[in-house]
Order: sequence, then structure tokens, then C-alpha cells
Amino acid sequence: MLVIMKPAATTKEISQVIARLTGDGYETQLSEHDGRTLIGVVGHDMPEPTRENYAMLAGVDQVMDVSVPYKRASREFHPTDTVVPLGGQLVGSGRIAVIAGPCSVESRDQIIETAHAVKEAGAIALRGGAFKPRTSPYSFQGFGEQALQWLAEAREQTGLPVVTEIMDPGLVPLVAQYADVFQIGARNMQNFTLLHAVGESQHPILLKRGMSSTIKELLMAAEYVLSHGNTRIMLCERGIRTFETFTRNTFDINAVPVLKHLTHLPVIADPSHAVGKREYVAAVARAGIAAGADGLLVEVHPCPEEAVSDGRQSLTPEQFAQLIEETRAIAAAVGRSA
Amino acid sequence: MLVIMKPAATTKEISQVIARLTGDGYETQLSEHDGRTLIGVVGHDMPEPTRENYAMLAGVDQVMDVSVPYKRASREFHPTDTVVPLGGQLVGSGRIAVIAGPCSVESRDQIIETAHAVKEAGAIALRGGAFKPRTSPYSFQGFGEQALQWLAEAREQTGLPVVTEIMDPGLVPLVAQYADVFQIGARNMQNFTLLHAVGESQHPILLKRGMSSTIKELLMAAEYVLSHGNTRIMLCERGIRTFETFTRNTFDINAVPVLKHLTHLPVIADPSHAVGKREYVAAVARAGIAAGADGLLVEVHPCPEEAVSDGRQSLTPEQFAQLIEETRAIAAAVGRSA
Amino acid sequence: MLVIMKPAATTKEISQVIARLTGDGYETQLSEHDGRTLIGVVGHDMPEPTRENYAMLAGVDQVMDVSVPYKRASREFHPTDTVVPLGGQLVGSGRIAVIAGPCSVESRDQIIETAHAVKEAGAIALRGGAFKPRTSPYSFQGFGEQALQWLAEAREQTGLPVVTEIMDPGLVPLVAQYADVFQIGARNMQNFTLLHAVGESQHPILLKRGMSSTIKELLMAAEYVLSHGNTRIMLCERGIRTFETFTRNTFDINAVPVLKHLTHLPVIADPSHAVGKREYVAAVARAGIAAGADGLLVEVHPCPEEAVSDGRQSLTPEQFAQLIEETRAIAAAVGRSA
Amino acid sequence: MLVIMKPAATTKEISQVIARLTGDGYETQLSEHDGRTLIGVVGHDMPEPTRENYAMLAGVDQVMDVSVPYKRASREFHPTDTVVPLGGQLVGSGRIAVIAGPCSVESRDQIIETAHAVKEAGAIALRGGAFKPRTSPYSFQGFGEQALQWLAEAREQTGLPVVTEIMDPGLVPLVAQYADVFQIGARNMQNFTLLHAVGESQHPILLKRGMSSTIKELLMAAEYVLSHGNTRIMLCERGIRTFETFTRNTFDINAVPVLKHLTHLPVIADPSHAVGKREYVAAVARAGIAAGADGLLVEVHPCPEEAVSDGRQSLTPEQFAQLIEETRAIAAAVGRSA
Repeated sequence: MLVIMKPAATTKEISQVIARLTGDGYETQLSEHDGRTLIGVVGHDMPEPTRENYAMLAGVDQVMDVSVPYKRASREFHPTDTVVPLGGQLVGSGRIAVIAGPCSVESRDQIIETAHAVKEAGAIALRGGAFKPRTSPYSFQGFGEQALQWLAEAREQTGLPVVTEIMDPGLVPLVAQYADVFQIGARNMQNFTLLHAVGESQHPILLKRGMSSTIKELLMAAEYVLSHGNTRIMLCERGIRTFETFTRNTFDINAVPVLKHLTHLPVIADPSHAVGKREYVAAVARAGIAAGADGLLVEVHPCPEEAVSDGRQSLTPEQFAQLIEETRAIAAAVGRSA
Repeated sequence: MLVIMKPAATTKEISQVIARLTGDGYETQLSEHDGRTLIGVVGHDMPEPTRENYAMLAGVDQVMDVSVPYKRASREFHPTDTVVPLGGQLVGSGRIAVIAGPCSVESRDQIIETAHAVKEAGAIALRGGAFKPRTSPYSFQGFGEQALQWLAEAREQTGLPVVTEIMDPGLVPLVAQYADVFQIGARNMQNFTLLHAVGESQHPILLKRGMSSTIKELLMAAEYVLSHGNTRIMLCERGIRTFETFTRNTFDINAVPVLKHLTHLPVIADPSHAVGKREYVAAVARAGIAAGADGLLVEVHPCPEEAVSDGRQSLTPEQFAQLIEETRAIAAAVGRSA
Repeated sequence: MLVIMKPAATTKEISQVIARLTGDGYETQLSEHDGRTLIGVVGHDMPEPTRENYAMLAGVDQVMDVSVPYKRASREFHPTDTVVPLGGQLVGSGRIAVIAGPCSVESRDQIIETAHAVKEAGAIALRGGAFKPRTSPYSFQGFGEQALQWLAEAREQTGLPVVTEIMDPGLVPLVAQYADVFQIGARNMQNFTLLHAVGESQHPILLKRGMSSTIKELLMAAEYVLSHGNTRIMLCERGIRTFETFTRNTFDINAVPVLKHLTHLPVIADPSHAVGKREYVAAVARAGIAAGADGLLVEVHPCPEEAVSDGRQSLTPEQFAQLIEETRAIAAAVGRSA
Repeated sequence: MLVIMKPAATTKEISQVIARLTGDGYETQLSEHDGRTLIGVVGHDMPEPTRENYAMLAGVDQVMDVSVPYKRASREFHPTDTVVPLGGQLVGSGRIAVIAGPCSVESRDQIIETAHAVKEAGAIALRGGAFKPRTSPYSFQGFGEQALQWLAEAREQTGLPVVTEIMDPGLVPLVAQYADVFQIGARNMQNFTLLHAVGESQHPILLKRGMSSTIKELLMAAEYVLSHGNTRIMLCERGIRTFETFTRNTFDINAVPVLKHLTHLPVIADPSHAVGKREYVAAVARAGIAAGADGLLVEVHPCPEEAVSDGRQSLTPEQFAQLIEETRAIAAAVGRSA
């Protein structure tokens, strides 16, 4: 850490900062740059709020930290790729992992039909919402445990592991009975109570980036889960909120290589929520793989025009099969299999 | 609702849309505009996902809705101002309500000393965090129930009601024992499980706008609480996330008159989180009141340089007393008291 | 156009709107939807400001337009792809067009060396800045006409056409003497005086999206150029400004398929400005092609550590050659050549 | 400047950085912090692009600058307030300066009528557009020189100085003949050719913040003008582009106290463009003054429903007179006159 004093800082102010640092157990080193005194701080990491306090002392211009706040999620800390076992495959190794299914589980028939269709096309896991976060209290909120049972039945028939969103920390035991992967939705990326709860399980986590969260905040959210002992985390870029309104969100393609660089955790691209319109999903899926993503999360519905949610961005099984084929070509072009 | 067909839509496509609408129980009315067929839809409200499904039918260009999705929160539905009782005052009536206190409750002495100081300066309620949402798992997470007990003690001594954040729906009964107002933090504005839980209580709610939530989404979050029976909601503008990084967030001053126009619920301005730097808090507080806010939420700490969180944006009791005075002058200028 | 009246609109208010529309030369059609009166407006297109005026009349809730404001740029108006001749190739036809070179022309040697290197690697045109838009008045502003001469010399030696930015409408004749393509920079996308000036030439235009411009605004800027008679326009996505600060901008990958859908003009991806860091350029370049872009604009410098501008995001000739190879594989995977 | 090496940087890498710095004429100072080597750089200011080059050297983690890039605009450089003479008043001294008038000059009668009305209400200058930046090439582009003549006539009758937008650097001499203040519009804030041109005149400049420009970029744009010798600059906050679409832009109220802190130049608030809807203009105007702005820029039209542009956000003369009265009360509350 570095404390940068103002050009006009007095000797007394400099001494006071040093005295406080010493009192807090740090060693200090002084130097002069651009007419300012700089105080280097040596010792244990200083938590962010304490740093802010130093920023308020008389004569201090700013306090800078040069270390990364996420340790366990960082590639510096853990250079080799983490792989997450899913459906007999290792997500984060060479092969592209595709997770697909409807936004909401709407009926037994719908989810079982979809499960067979996405399996045949090449998906390795089935997604489907049992508890739905909906902007309106008057919208369909999901079939809950009933939906979990249908998902489990679909798994029995197809062998596909089940990925489903969890919103309530109190429901971890219930959902754990049926699902193979806990999805943390974008709106809950900083629901720390929930991150704590799933961090204590050993279920793999699909952690979606909040729609206005920075890459660093996504890594800090992963750090919460990691700090409670669960290392099976897949990060998911699903589009961020920008001024552009033609698409539902803006898929942050930059985040794919950046995440692969900063962290050892696998990265999944969700083109469906990123664009929000069916006709653009395949292009963004191809882009995600071309940029280095380890997998895809795609919304598929046997009959999108009948979907109770997100129909506008859902693919038909035929469109999904086509997307898989296109993706395979891209995967091969970047030296991966799919 | 209106279904706007593409210019090139065929008669068959138009007929298919009409047939489906009729099948779903709606009446239709046809007209022609700008070379397109428009299908007016008469009948009960159509939920958003169903509308989206119509948008996918062959020949359809777009589907538009002309109604507001929030009913109970809307001023059209409820023209007269809602007032929320707090500390012997009615928030949303003419008098400005100031809620103040530290970001985190750090000790018995700290919270009691602050309570006395803010009361003396003119605050009508005490804020203080017992459970803290922190970006890093390694930061201080709050003293929990112990902090709630200290807050209750501060209330006993000063008479100030207690406002504190709740993050875990499972803790509603515990927090309700000690606190007078549940604060829903910005990160939890769309934690629907939590909104449901506090909507079933009768404690007043301080609902903070998510840092990347639209005004409409804030009203939909209020609608969740309202739909579960709790009408004692104060909306809080606390800054949104933009490209500007000099300040912590961008206070959306426009939102103040817009919310007063769209909804009957009182509006509180939080200048502390909006700017993130102590020296700009008073200016934004004055602006909030000038724009029509019904109250303020201000971070105050007896010794900001020692604060374990948000010290950088906390005022000293003296600065807070000065802010209150400035605010009173503004309140008088807009025909209110403080 | 549609005028949607408020539910509470009186017969008198409705009559006044109709009278004004009739006076303005429009025919009207009335219908009822959701308890509101709707007035359909038939006749010539109504300009946006006039529409806004109707929105202000008593009893009017909103006025909606269902037509697109860009005509010549729209694929509805012009369904077949526009191709732009460049370096003996047609940009927008099947083959990927790569334009490369340094941010600034720094010396005769630098630009000639780079021209040879990028040609050898597979570029079909040379970029280089003679007049530089710089945030600081104290930064290097470009070598001006001298740089144009060096660029022309590089073209003579390599055969590569020259792409260079123009900022001053008064310099169109000068720049036209030396350059083959006028680049309109992101900061000038809505410099309408400049758009007018280049619209009157027949030089191809590389029109970069403003860093906070919507897709629609980009198309409207193209419409300016088209409306003055120049149809040789290449649109360039180069990243938009968002809250994410880890990368210089956020490449809007969604915009690639969306633009290909909405307009007949070719789309070029600029990964260099979008990410701002050399190590991520190739991944975003691959993504752009995978999503359907017709070409790339890439910053290349013989010695990035010595560049006077944008060195941080410039590739060495070797890295560029590697990028071209990776891009070719992706192009083949999406059925294109490169 | 500071060069922060990676934890794993080798002695050889450190030596290479030092050698290059020495070669470039800088002195260096070494220290160790958090297990990293830090190289302090002493000597003349290093331009940003050169700093970026150092960031690319082997072993370097990042390069940080602790100095501000704007010198002449900075309050450190020039502690006392700059005041700009306008209409017999000094903008930036205690009295609030209100500039008002229509978006576009539409006719001789319209501008003369408006001039009288805004003068009577208390405005000290008249605004009106002769050359209009319009998103669509098919919208009204202004009456050009004819409008300038009408503006001059309005000045003759009322004594109000004329503020008008200039977009084309080639028109500086023409516009200077008629107008008293050059307005630089938001879309041209980084039109450096134009900034250069007006920087060489001595006309006061009303410099509007770009809709996606940071506070720092606004100050750098002012620096351009200052560096060419013109110090009569008024900065104008007019709303920034965010994800919120209910209002036209988001007025950045934080920017008002921040600008007053960072720079000596006066700050004008433009509530009209910030909200885009007439009914919210007065609230944001009051907020701007409460936060410390030195003046207002307000759109006023004798008959907003007939305006050819921006009618939706224009006030009638009566509404404007009411706004002035409200503003006076706020000004008094913050110790200023109006």
C-alpha cells in the first residue's frame, strides 16, 4: 500500500500519518515523487475500509493498493485451470460444455421432451427454473418443488445432470436433493447470505455475473464461495446493462479473455440473456467460443411461442441443434472440441 | 395492447394472430396505419411473457403495451400521498425526515454516542448496520444480534426509532424484535424472497434503489412488498452506476421529481452513498430536498477516520449539524419544514 | 403514427387533437383499446419534433411511431448487401477484409515498415493517423500533411490503399489527395458538419460508432452520409463506454449480428480500441468474425513500446500475423474466406 | 510517476526499466512494497502515451501517475474563481446567471417575443440555435445566418447578449459577428478542431459536457480552449447517458460540487436537456442551484407545442417566470442572489 501526500502536506501531517501506521503495526518507507511525499506501507494486508480511513487524514491525497483483493479466485494464487466435473465431462478442460433447457419448467412433458431434445443435439446438462426471479409479483413464479421433481425425472430418463437456480438460502437442502448444480442468478450475485450458503455445500455452482457488476466484483463473489470451501465454480458472462436498448443486455465479450487471464475458474457464455432475441443468439454463442469460453448456457424450449417466460430468446430444438453444429466448427478452429 | 404487423405481413399471418388472440379469450379490433395492419386487443391484462410470445408469431413486427405494470405503487391507482409513521412524524407529509447514523454498528459506545449526537442535530431516526453486505468475504460483516441489542439500547436512551438493513429472509423475526424499520439494501432490491418476507410484516420498509435498477424496476420492487400487504414503504434514491468514476455513484436527481410524480410513496435521498466522499455530501443533500425529496439518509460517525466501513463518506456530528441547518433553509425555500 | 390518449381524456381533448391533425394535413382513424382512445394518423411521415408536440397536447398520454427513422441505411429499403471496393476486394462480400497499421504515423520509416509487414501478413489496406484527436492539448497531435505524404509513399510501395482519420471538414480536399478512405472517428460520429462534407465526396467512409452512441444513432449517422450521395460506407464497432473499467471499452458483440440484420452496409470490428490491452485483441478479433463481421481494423506497430499513442493496444507484426491466421480459421468455420 | 513491477519481476527486468528511464532523462528511486519493487520517477512530466509504453515492458505490472492532466483548468493551478462577464454581470461571482431561450430560432417574431419574455422574468442572456445538430438528416437544421441576424435584432431590442451554438470551425468569424457567447454542444465537446478555433477567439465559451464524457474529460476539453488563450469558459452540466430511459439523460448533480472543487471555472446547470420533459425541469433547476451551480441554461418557447425542436422540454414564459422565482428562493437559502 502507498499513501500519497498532497504537494502542500506539512511535515507535521506526514509525521501523523507515519505515527498512525506505526501504531497499527505497519512499517513505513518514505520517498519523494513529483514534489510529493510517498509513504510505502509494509506488513500484513490492510483491509479496504482501513485504507479509506487513511485517505481522510490531513495532508493525504490518496491511498493506493497494488494487490488484488481476490486471492483464491486469482490465477496468481492458483495458476492451473480448475475443472468442474459435470455430466461425465470436465468443464474447463478442452471440450466445450453446453448446458441447455427452458427458462422455466412448465410441465412434466415440457421438461422431459426438452431434455431428450437437447441431449440428442449435444448438451451435457439440463437447465430449467423451478423458482423464478420475476420483475413483477404478478408473473409466474415457478412450480417450485414440483418442478424439481420433474427435473429429476428428466435426469433419470436422459442421464443429464440438472442445473437450476436457487434464490433462498433456506432452500439449499431441498434443492440439493434434486439438482446437481446450483445456479446463482445475476440479481443474486451479491446476495452474500446465499453465496455463504452454497459455499458450504459441495455442489458445483454456476455463478452468473450481475448485470451491472464489474469483472472484479464477479471475482469477489466467487471468492465468497471459495472462502467457504466450495471450489467447484463456473463463472457465467450473461450480458451487462448499458445505454444500448436494442438488445436486452450487452454481452461483454471482452470479459471472456479477461476472466481466462485473471482466474483459473471455467467461464461459461450465456448468449440468450445477453441478446434477448432469438435471431441473434447463435452469433453471440459462436463469438463466445471464439473468444475462449469453456461452455455455453442456452435457452431452449420445444415451443417458444408458448413459453411462460423468455420465449422471445428461446431457441427451438432444431435451432439449438444448428447452433451446436456451428459452435463445433468454431471450437475446432480454436483448437477445442465440442 | 396492440399487435403491430410488418408491412409485408400476409392476410394469412394476420388471420393466424387474430385466431390465437380469440382462442386466448381476447377481442380484437383492426386498423391500418403507415401501411401496416394494427390489431387492438381488448380484454383482461395480458402478462408480459405472453405478450412476448405474440411478438414471435409470423408477420408480427412488435407488440406494445400501454398500461403500467405497477398498480398498487402507482399514483393513478392511489392518488393521495402515502405517509409512513416514523419517530412521531409522518414521512411524506410536509416535514423533512432525516435518518442518520453510522454505516456499521461498531460498539455500544459508538452507536449510543452517535444516537445522541444525531438526535440533538435534528434526526428523527437512527440508522446502523448489524448485518453488512460487503464486497469482500474478508471484510467486517457486522456484529449481528449484538449490534441489534446496542441499537435497541440507543433507542431506549434517545427515543429514536432504529433503521437497520436486513439481508436474510430467515432473520425477519429476529430483526423485527429489535428494529423499527427494515432497510432493503441496493444489492437486494430484486431479492424477491426477501421482498416477500418483509412484505408480510407491518414494519416500515426503507427500499433502496439498486445501483443499476431503473425507476420502473424500483416501483416493481415496491409492488412486491405492496402485493404482500405492507404499504409502509419509503423509496430511497442512493445513486446509480454510470461510467463516471470520480464519485462512488451518480445521484439520479431526476428520479426525485419523477418518483413523486409516478408514485404516492415517500422518497428519501441518500447523498452519502451517492457521492462516496464526505466533502460533497451536503451539496447533494441540499439538492435532494430542493428537488422535492421527503427526507434524507445520512451516514454519521463520531470519528470517521476510525470507521470500519464507509468512513470516507461519513460526516462528523458537527458536519451533520451543519448539513441539517443548510437543509432547513432549503426546505423552507420549497415550502416545507425540517 | 399513433396518438394514445389518457384513460381520463375528455371528448373535447380528443376532438382538439383530431382538429390539429386534420389542420396539419393528416387523416385520422379512431379506435378504443384498454379503455383509451387511440388516434391512428395516416399520411406523410411526421418529423420527430412535431410528434413531440402532439405528445404535449391536453389529454395525450403518448405518441408512438412505428416506422424506422433511417431509410437509406435500412435493409428494408435496400435488401441486398452493399459492398465497398477496397484494395481490389469488395468489403461486405464473402471475404474478410483486414485493415491494419499504427495509431499514429510517426515517421516515414515507421509507416513504410509497417505497411510492408501488414501486407505480408494479409492486410488489404493500411491505416495510420495524420491528424489525431487527443484528449489532452499537450499530447502529440499528428504530423498532418507530412504524414499523409508518407502514407501515400507507403501505398506506392505496397499497393495498399490508405485509411486515415479526418476531423476537420475544411480538410476534405487535402486529405482526399492522399487517402483512399476517410475514417470518421468515434468522437466525430455526430459531427454533422463533417458527415455532410464527406457525404459529398465519393471516397469510401469508415464510420466508427461513437463510444456512447446507440446502434440506431450509428445508422442515423450513416443516413447523413447516404443522404448526401455517398453510399460507400463501412460501419465500425469499436467498443462502447460502460461501467466496466478493466478494459478500455466494452466491445458490443451483439451489435455485429444486429447491424447485419438492420442494414445492408458492411460491418468492421475494431478489437484494438475495444479492449485497449494487447493481450486481449486477438480473442475479440476472433469473436467479431465469428459473430459475422465483414472485416477487422487492427492497430499494428513495429515496436509498440515506442509508439507515441495507443502502444498498449498495438500488436507487433508477428502478433498480427498470428491473429490473421487465427482469424482465417474462424472465417472458414463461418463459411467465409480471409 | 511510479512504475510498479510484478512480484515475479527479475532483477534483469528491473534493470531494463531503470536503464530506459535513465535514457529518457528521468531519475529513479527504488523501494519495496508488498513484495514488489517500485520505481519512482523524478523529472519532467511524462506524457500519457509514453507512460503506457512503460506499462508494456517485461516485468512491469502497472504505471501510475499522481498528477492531474489539466493544469490551467485546475484550482490547484489557479485557486481563485474565474468570473466570466455576461450581460453586465459576472458569472461565477455570487449572483445566479440565467440564460434562456428557445432550442431553435424559428422566426423573427418567435425569438424577439421570447427575448422580451425571458428578460422580464429575469434572464441575463438569450439562447437560441441558428445551426442545429440533429440526429436525423431529415430534421430541421436551423436557419443559419438568417437566425443569427434575428438574434442580433433581439439583442438590440432587449440588451440581452446572445448565446448560440457553433459546430463548424470554419464559421467562427461569421458567428462572432452576431453572437456574444459561443456554445459548444455536448456532441462537440471533443471536437478538438472546434475547441482550437474558439480557443483563439476571446468570446466567452459555454462548454457543454459530452453526454458520455467524464468530469475529467470535460476539464481536458476546457484545457484545450485555455491552452489556446481563451480563459472565458463556463462549464455546463446537461445530463449524462445512463441505463435509465425514463428521462432523456441523467443530470449528474454530483458533478456540480465536484467541478466547483476541482476547477476555478463557473458551472452552469442545464436542467432542460437533462430531463427532457417539461414537468421535471424546475425541480432539477432548483437542485442545481442548491448544489452550488453559478447559473442555469433553460429552454423557453412562447408556444412549446409549436416548437420545431425540443418542445417537449421547453417551458412557457409563465412557467419560466415561476422557475425563476423558485430559484431565487433557493439561491437565497445558499447565500447567493439571483
